Amino acid sequence: MYDGIVQDLIDEFGRLPGIGPKSAQRIAFHILQTESFDPTRLSELLADVKEKVRFCEVCGNVTESERCSICRDPRRSPTVICVVEEAKDVAAIERTREFRGLYHVLGGAISPIDGVGPDDLRIQQLMTRLADGTVDEVIIATDPNLEGEATATYLSRLLVPMGIRTTRLASGLPVGGDLEYADEVTLGRAFEGRRLVGG
Amino acid sequence: MYDGIVQDLIDEFGRLPGIGPKSAQRIAFHILQTESFDPTRLSELLADVKEKVRFCEVCGNVTESERCSICRDPRRSPTVICVVEEAKDVAAIERTREFRGLYHVLGGAISPIDGVGPDDLRIQQLMTRLADGTVDEVIIATDPNLEGEATATYLSRLLVPMGIRTTRLASGLPVGGDLEYADEVTLGRAFEGRRLVGG
Repeated sequence: MYDGIVQDLIDEFGRLPGIGPKSAQRIAFHILQTESFDPTRLSELLADVKEKVRFCEVCGNVTESERCSICRDPRRSPTVICVVEEAKDVAAIERTREFRGLYHVLGGAISPIDGVGPDDLRIQQLMTRLADGTVDEVIIATDPNLEGEATATYLSRLLVPMGIRTTRLASGLPVGGDLEYADEVTLGRAFEGRRLVGG
Repeated sequence: MYDGIVQDLIDEFGRLPGIGPKSAQRIAFHILQTESFDPTRLSELLADVKEKVRFCEVCGNVTESERCSICRDPRRSPTVICVVEEAKDVAAIERTREFRGLYHVLGGAISPIDGVGPDDLRIQQLMTRLADGTVDEVIIATDPNLEGEATATYLSRLLVPMGIRTTRLASGLPVGGDLEYADEVTLGRAFEGRRLVGG
């Protein structure tokens, strides 16, 4: 619809997840028509990102070094490992500022339908990290869905017999949510996990 | 939240219109984790786009030449000019395949609140194009909102006294829409513009 480079730019933006043709067009014209917008930095980052960013050889988080900033941080407790599916989950948990241990990124979850089995995840690397006995708790923080639950069950069957304290994040009503709009599974979990008040 | 370049990439994507922090993170991780995704082309286009793309010196549409592909096309009728606010509107009208004349992109609409007056738009350039008498119809296709209507009124007051046939796109119910959900102004326009059936 447009001449050469403008259409190419729209097409390339349209290949990114969550950007449809209309959004891609809007972005391309914003870049073109906003005098103050300099696309140089984004251009440089895109040229560099795949070359410079790798995965932490200990935990699998994204990093530009051999080990990520969390694994390198001496203030983090090496006795607790939180197991997550993706590096994005690390960032989400870090935002809570609740957790001061280390992470282990699996790189996905067990999903027979997508052909992802335990061997496709970084489970062997987790076992290696647990071998020296430093870790006394593994918190399983996989997603609260079918694949995440299957992965959590698989992991707990490996970890519990090893005598490692194994925990799973609580399921329940989201804070700020509305009880009447909660799905029945979440509501059921909230009942199961109810806690004594004032005890 | 992330080390260096990943966070920089998320920040840069977040500066684009319609991309919030969550979408920016999703896009950055898609680029990182999808092996088949090569960001080189997007990087190159972003480096080039502001340098190579300019505005057609006749109609104001986007182009990489002095004149855009529509102005250069000898099959387009030079006797009808469709006046639009933005280059994006040219693409929208081209998709209908209904119009075979030329365009004139104003570069916006009259909006006193945003400090945009007639002199900020490419109205003088339109007058120059009309001077040789080739054009016998000007179709005003500004947006059907306050600013677009003000611009249409301003233009028609210039064009009608010059003896140029001046038309405005029809307002009415959107095709595929539902009458009960139409706003009253649109419904009012649909009544005003009603057409005789079978006449």
